[in-house]
Amino acid sequence: MPDPAVLRYNFAAGPGVMPAEVLAQAQREFLDWDGNGFSMLETPFTGDTFKNVLRMAREDLRGLLNIPDNYRILFMHGGASAQFSLVPLNLLGNKRQADHIETGYWSTKNMREAGRYCRVNIAASSTETSFDRMPMDWHLNPESAYCHFTSNETANGTQFHQLPDTGDLPLVADMTSDFLSRPFDITRYGLIYAGAQKNVGPAGVTVVIVREDLLGRAHPATPTVFNYAAQAEADSMLQTPVTYSVYLAGLVFRWIRDQGGVAAMEQNSRRRSSSLYDAIDNSDGFYQCPVQPDHRSLMNICFSPVNDTLTPFFLTEATAEGLLHLKGHPMTGGMRASLYNAMPDAGVTALVDFMQYFSEAHRHHV
Amino acid sequence: MPDPAVLRYNFAAGPGVMPAEVLAQAQREFLDWDGNGFSMLETPFTGDTFKNVLRMAREDLRGLLNIPDNYRILFMHGGASAQFSLVPLNLLGNKRQADHIETGYWSTKNMREAGRYCRVNIAASSTETSFDRMPMDWHLNPESAYCHFTSNETANGTQFHQLPDTGDLPLVADMTSDFLSRPFDITRYGLIYAGAQKNVGPAGVTVVIVREDLLGRAHPATPTVFNYAAQAEADSMLQTPVTYSVYLAGLVFRWIRDQGGVAAMEQNSRRRSSSLYDAIDNSDGFYQCPVQPDHRSLMNICFSPVNDTLTPFFLTEATAEGLLHLKGHPMTGGMRASLYNAMPDAGVTALVDFMQYFSEAHRHHV
Repeated sequence: MPDPAVLRYNFAAGPGVMPAEVLAQAQREFLDWDGNGFSMLETPFTGDTFKNVLRMAREDLRGLLNIPDNYRILFMHGGASAQFSLVPLNLLGNKRQADHIETGYWSTKNMREAGRYCRVNIAASSTETSFDRMPMDWHLNPESAYCHFTSNETANGTQFHQLPDTGDLPLVADMTSDFLSRPFDITRYGLIYAGAQKNVGPAGVTVVIVREDLLGRAHPATPTVFNYAAQAEADSMLQTPVTYSVYLAGLVFRWIRDQGGVAAMEQNSRRRSSSLYDAIDNSDGFYQCPVQPDHRSLMNICFSPVNDTLTPFFLTEATAEGLLHLKGHPMTGGMRASLYNAMPDAGVTALVDFMQYFSEAHRHHV
Repeated sequence: MPDPAVLRYNFAAGPGVMPAEVLAQAQREFLDWDGNGFSMLETPFTGDTFKNVLRMAREDLRGLLNIPDNYRILFMHGGASAQFSLVPLNLLGNKRQADHIETGYWSTKNMREAGRYCRVNIAASSTETSFDRMPMDWHLNPESAYCHFTSNETANGTQFHQLPDTGDLPLVADMTSDFLSRPFDITRYGLIYAGAQKNVGPAGVTVVIVREDLLGRAHPATPTVFNYAAQAEADSMLQTPVTYSVYLAGLVFRWIRDQGGVAAMEQNSRRRSSSLYDAIDNSDGFYQCPVQPDHRSLMNICFSPVNDTLTPFFLTEATAEGLLHLKGHPMTGGMRASLYNAMPDAGVTALVDFMQYFSEAHRHHV
């Protein structure tokens, strides 16, 4: 049993830390939502109570990201991994090829699944430099239905901070791990999607934002409940939505708005990630980050002691100090600190202090 | 705003009432699960904490329903409506036809979706008697890959209380609305599935129980995360599971066990539904139930005043008395009282008392 006197910080890559204020509100109204005498968990989705929750969540999200009316916002079942299949099923239309940008663990997984539905044209890749950066030289193919990329590679610790010009080809992005962490211009995209379990809320609901003209070209094998056009037509209520997750997502949208919106989220994550990257870069060679400075993720900071045999000791000692879930992705090893919107500054300070202590205690091992 | 002094009962068809003890426990541990200092909502699915929650839920369910080892228990994304597509995608194999039993709103919806993937052979139907019963004379076709039926028709208020012999054809059942309300012999089935939002827990997770020999025949277009074999192989963790819903489902499984298991659930629902059906049948022709007595659902009791112009008044007055969500399915009209496992006896007593009062007050309108 952990010592309750130790303050604990959750650096998990997902499901990860949620805003304390949101959790406190959800706990307060857990048994009686809005004076109805029932939990949101027990609320039928066909009644006005839930419909209002869904509508408000959608409109708040529209406001947060400045989404114009020709984009539809869907709250879908299935998780982001389902979208790896649902994007080609819904968007290929009469084309048989998609462009993909190969940037790390998740984009590779995505390409493997997409390859079950169409030819995958690798329009850019950073595999030759072991995914230490995001490739900026994209060779798009006009035969492709769209170009898919992963905006932030959770396992590799890389993030696109700008995008090349992609012309008319619809841009499709898996934004699961940096959605709502910064402003972005949705009009550059045909479709974006994000699993909720990073910056939005609990696992189970996936946000899909799609430009209307891309609807209506689904493959006949597409399950009806996963047809974007059908769900758009039904306001995401073609089936029972993941009601509690939608409700929590709505609370998180309000929380982001009250904090100053996505611009404030970006300021926070720049400040937090900078102090962590500074601690790595200024460690006199004790710690290293495998990612090129201009391509480092503000969400998932990957690092390790240069002497990697120290990694297990780092993780054990950090856990004892209340710095939890810092173990890197199994494929990349080392450490990973996920700094989602809900991570308090104090968590980063505690981690930086611990890194300083640890490097002093173990410097003779370098 | 409803009067907080009035006791309220939730007769919604789903999401519907959950056990008060489960909700109280979930609220207590909402911010700090098992002394970890974090909410279950924030718990990464790759760690032992969540893996144990998932494993316990699976094993408790296995115990509740006496499920032998050659059946795999999956906790899937997508809701039961996704299974309407995923069953044919996963089970047709090299066959091109499925038998379906046509019994009402949900089985019809299911057949329509199945028809997008294969020939649908209607092996039995009660459409000629307006779905007032469950058809017992099934004409199965050996060319079919399986026979699908809906064990309880939520909208129509019918339920199978016994099944004809189906020989070797794998039996597939949508048990969404009566799962865990009574014992059943899983070895008669090839596969059963149930959306959670009735007797299990919150919307978002779907339980699939499948016989091992039916795995491994999925159509190539099946999204990988919806491939039963792949999810069975990955212990339902091929992607981030709907973690909070799995946790709540596990609490409900424990609650059912502590109440005496599914046999006790059946006793409860027999007692509760009987008192409601008795109130209808003994109303001197004021109320009617459209379903033949031997085929009436113990879960969803459909009824209306014989003088249907009274229905809106009944609903308005009932709501004022704290008897909520009694409106029937839009397709069938009238009233529907859903008596899931978590409905307290007092809710049924209150409804019966109100029906008695209402029939006396409005008898002159018959």
